[in-house]
Amino acid sequence: MIHTKILPPAASAYEYPLLVKNLLLTTLHYEPDNEIVYRDRIRYDYRKLNERIHRLANTLAAAGLQPGETAAVLDWDTHRYLECFFAVPMMGAVLHTVNIRLSREQILYTMNHAEDKVVLVNAEFLPLLESIKDELTTAKTFILLHDDNTVPSTNLPFIGEYEALLAAAPTYYNFPDFDENSVATIFYTTGTTGSPKGVYFTHRQLVLHTLAGSTTLGSYETTVRFRSNDVYMPITPMFHVHAWGIPYIATMLGTKQVYPGKYEPEMLLKLLIQEKVTFSHCVPTILHMLVSSPLAQTVDLSQWKVIIGGSALPKGLAQAAADLGIQLITGYGMSETCPILTLTYLKERILSRGTPEEEITYRTKAGLPIPLVQLRLIDEEGKVLPHDGVSTGEIVVRAPWLTQSYFKETALSDQLWQDGWLHTGDVASVNLEGYVQISDRLKDVIKTGGEWVSSLEIENLMSQHEAVSEVAVIGFPDERWGERPGALVVLKPGCHMAVADIKTFMYGFVQQGKINEWYIPDRIIFTQAIPKTIVGKIDKKRIRAEMAATLQRAM
Amino acid sequence: MIHTKILPPAASAYEYPLLVKNLLLTTLHYEPDNEIVYRDRIRYDYRKLNERIHRLANTLAAAGLQPGETAAVLDWDTHRYLECFFAVPMMGAVLHTVNIRLSREQILYTMNHAEDKVVLVNAEFLPLLESIKDELTTAKTFILLHDDNTVPSTNLPFIGEYEALLAAAPTYYNFPDFDENSVATIFYTTGTTGSPKGVYFTHRQLVLHTLAGSTTLGSYETTVRFRSNDVYMPITPMFHVHAWGIPYIATMLGTKQVYPGKYEPEMLLKLLIQEKVTFSHCVPTILHMLVSSPLAQTVDLSQWKVIIGGSALPKGLAQAAADLGIQLITGYGMSETCPILTLTYLKERILSRGTPEEEITYRTKAGLPIPLVQLRLIDEEGKVLPHDGVSTGEIVVRAPWLTQSYFKETALSDQLWQDGWLHTGDVASVNLEGYVQISDRLKDVIKTGGEWVSSLEIENLMSQHEAVSEVAVIGFPDERWGERPGALVVLKPGCHMAVADIKTFMYGFVQQGKINEWYIPDRIIFTQAIPKTIVGKIDKKRIRAEMAATLQRAM
Repeated sequence: MIHTKILPPAASAYEYPLLVKNLLLTTLHYEPDNEIVYRDRIRYDYRKLNERIHRLANTLAAAGLQPGETAAVLDWDTHRYLECFFAVPMMGAVLHTVNIRLSREQILYTMNHAEDKVVLVNAEFLPLLESIKDELTTAKTFILLHDDNTVPSTNLPFIGEYEALLAAAPTYYNFPDFDENSVATIFYTTGTTGSPKGVYFTHRQLVLHTLAGSTTLGSYETTVRFRSNDVYMPITPMFHVHAWGIPYIATMLGTKQVYPGKYEPEMLLKLLIQEKVTFSHCVPTILHMLVSSPLAQTVDLSQWKVIIGGSALPKGLAQAAADLGIQLITGYGMSETCPILTLTYLKERILSRGTPEEEITYRTKAGLPIPLVQLRLIDEEGKVLPHDGVSTGEIVVRAPWLTQSYFKETALSDQLWQDGWLHTGDVASVNLEGYVQISDRLKDVIKTGGEWVSSLEIENLMSQHEAVSEVAVIGFPDERWGERPGALVVLKPGCHMAVADIKTFMYGFVQQGKINEWYIPDRIIFTQAIPKTIVGKIDKKRIRAEMAATLQRAM
Repeated sequence: MIHTKILPPAASAYEYPLLVKNLLLTTLHYEPDNEIVYRDRIRYDYRKLNERIHRLANTLAAAGLQPGETAAVLDWDTHRYLECFFAVPMMGAVLHTVNIRLSREQILYTMNHAEDKVVLVNAEFLPLLESIKDELTTAKTFILLHDDNTVPSTNLPFIGEYEALLAAAPTYYNFPDFDENSVATIFYTTGTTGSPKGVYFTHRQLVLHTLAGSTTLGSYETTVRFRSNDVYMPITPMFHVHAWGIPYIATMLGTKQVYPGKYEPEMLLKLLIQEKVTFSHCVPTILHMLVSSPLAQTVDLSQWKVIIGGSALPKGLAQAAADLGIQLITGYGMSETCPILTLTYLKERILSRGTPEEEITYRTKAGLPIPLVQLRLIDEEGKVLPHDGVSTGEIVVRAPWLTQSYFKETALSDQLWQDGWLHTGDVASVNLEGYVQISDRLKDVIKTGGEWVSSLEIENLMSQHEAVSEVAVIGFPDERWGERPGALVVLKPGCHMAVADIKTFMYGFVQQGKINEWYIPDRIIFTQAIPKTIVGKIDKKRIRAEMAATLQRAM
């Protein structure tokens, strides 16, 4: 380290720590009348939000939650969850956003591994929690979350119901200052083999992610911006990377926020229209579900801006959304990265002189690294690859908001942070203009005849056939080529197709020079549904495990 | 300090420091074709800016500048200065932005006090530098800044001219990582008694000021926003609090930037029009000069957005600017605060239902504290006052970008940071909606009959008389009341007025209940010009020293 000039502060100077509580400073004086809405049940303004955060902290302190200890939440996307996003870290405690879509065993594992002390649980998950309660090693105190004020019959020793406890709690809590590197949140990520892995974020990281995220979404003048007069509704779960961190941005900006509870297409569309939602984010699967809903054809969605992330956005789906007037862009990131790394930015060149097709292309790419993000491509030996639009390698990154390790997993942490760069496990190219194009998960790349073929690229092209609703491509073992691509296809209702039809369709792209002939899947299976992970991504691990044999038998 | 959870990072995890160099990451891939323009002389794109920053660092390293050492710049607002804003701190060195409007003795004092090693000097200031060269204790190496490539005759031992040195330097410099708390910039503030005081800012502070500033200017949807497709031209000097930090924001966003050199009304207006400038900032005096220029009446200024700061914006001037279509807002801050603390935000309520007069009122208030800023009012005993629109006290603040001390001035630093809050010396009220209204400098408040009367408020009302061009109000000693207000008035060309006229005009405000009768100045002097400080603020210290006697004799 070089020797720079570092000066001692004045004896009484305040060395400002970056703490989550400071994101609330603006909410009481910008537009405090803006509302927090929960389904068609509850609405209140930012003054009330502040008061309820204070009441919640008093409730949790009375429940015995100490700074440094962990409080777990098992809930859908609610105003209560938003309150926990602030109150728990602001006390100096850690918020564990439990992934309620994991299996019973995995949830038990994560709650013990995270050392949860106080558990806030939605009544819907009582049977689950009752079934694991005797195996919980650290959790002793339970608070009931319930839309009604009734207490369901349960053998869990609840200290009370959330609303009743808040109503009885004092309205002021003296939120302390502490080290900005204190852990604020933890949650678990699955996906590869082994137990779920805990990723955690500090106050400093959340504040910096919030500032860089809001600057990117607000100050770069292009399509799909998120600003203080937007109306926000998350449609990626709050337990999943803090709903991409957008609730922190929305709260700092004082926007109206709408929390939809459990995701039900009818409720989502109803809230979209009634609350005049203008900004959301979701995975392609949810967008597909909404766009395919008959209700979607009957309402005006032209004011709705959506960031798509979590997995690649197929062009066909992007076009279907565009046909409904929905304004889409793409983001890229992962649990380990807080998550935002890149976002679509349509350059002046594209907006003023690009074709509609070019615009869709750039809306479905992963975009550009946002401020403070350093992004590199490396090959299998760790050598840095050029950003030439051709070279394809693993994305490695640096940013001020990346998890610094997997909680209590030294070996995996060292792998994640090999050579001082966070290894994403994603394969991409970056073109001369800086646009990142994710081609695949490192583990999903199909290695055929010495070449790397992107399963996502094949899916993208196949999805453009008018009869195709969804498609998944994996590599299956092949004696001669090592691997060959195989595809699972879900047809649109009322459509039918032969294997030869889709192969002919794909051959069209070969003739256009878009792909080589060996990209065309050897084997194609038509199916009713494609296996998905709990967060709605195509579950290629399961497809490989369950379908490789069928694919090998297929034509 | 409470005991929170702090976890060790993975052994090879990258602990990302907030460094000025990271603000440049985006510039090469968002809109790298956007230009940096210097007057009608030079224009180049962001690729070139990056290259020139690397060349400059190599030039300075070859000149012997070491990390931790200080490089001084004496220049007008140029593309070269922008390059220094980045290259010097990015090397780990300190940039001293020399206030060229100080006296010879003060400049000498600041250059020795800051321990400048390398000096970059515009040819215009050669006579000055030559006159102090033998008294400089640390500066030994000089680089010439000159719009032509000629070398003027001088006895200073220049190592070369800036452009020639850059042309000969390598295009890549390996900018190192270092502690984010390293000092990046230093400059000197005057205004009260004694020697100029050095305020300094670290890399962390500049990055956080940039992010919070861009979020405030970009993500809050109201009038006068600064976004990536704006065209920026500073009209507060770059030596003065880094031109309010906006060049750092503009560069991160990759906007087109226009540097006007020495401020000359004709050149400023020419650049405004020819380069399609949309965003600037300046002090009221400069705005007054531009608005009063005959040329201003002949051009379209309706695309120009301006932040006014440095001193209060009189409503009369705000109206004159509005009449030309200029969109104004107000900012508040000071050298010690990097500087932004508050900015105008027009609430939905005002924009949708406010009268034009109400809008002007809110545009001329100091606005709302921006994200992460904590602002309090305290009385003379340090007691915290309510934000009720009535209570008036000194503003004290906390933010992540406040100077942590005056350089090598322990006693003054302790005063500045008394009780852990930075004392601004400004007197204000804050209303129930959070709007800050600066009423005066603590030392300019007029204490009459036990009441505090704001000299600014009186100036503001007097400036609304149609014959008044400028006005300055001070307190002069009075045996009975302690102090009484006295006013200096500059009339508009071709206007004339008696003392009784303006008193009658002011009495109108008494009848409207806006002020009490004792606010009306006892003594009024008509004058050709009001003494100003070197940064264009009304110099009340000098007025008190030179004019109190005349005021006492006046009617």
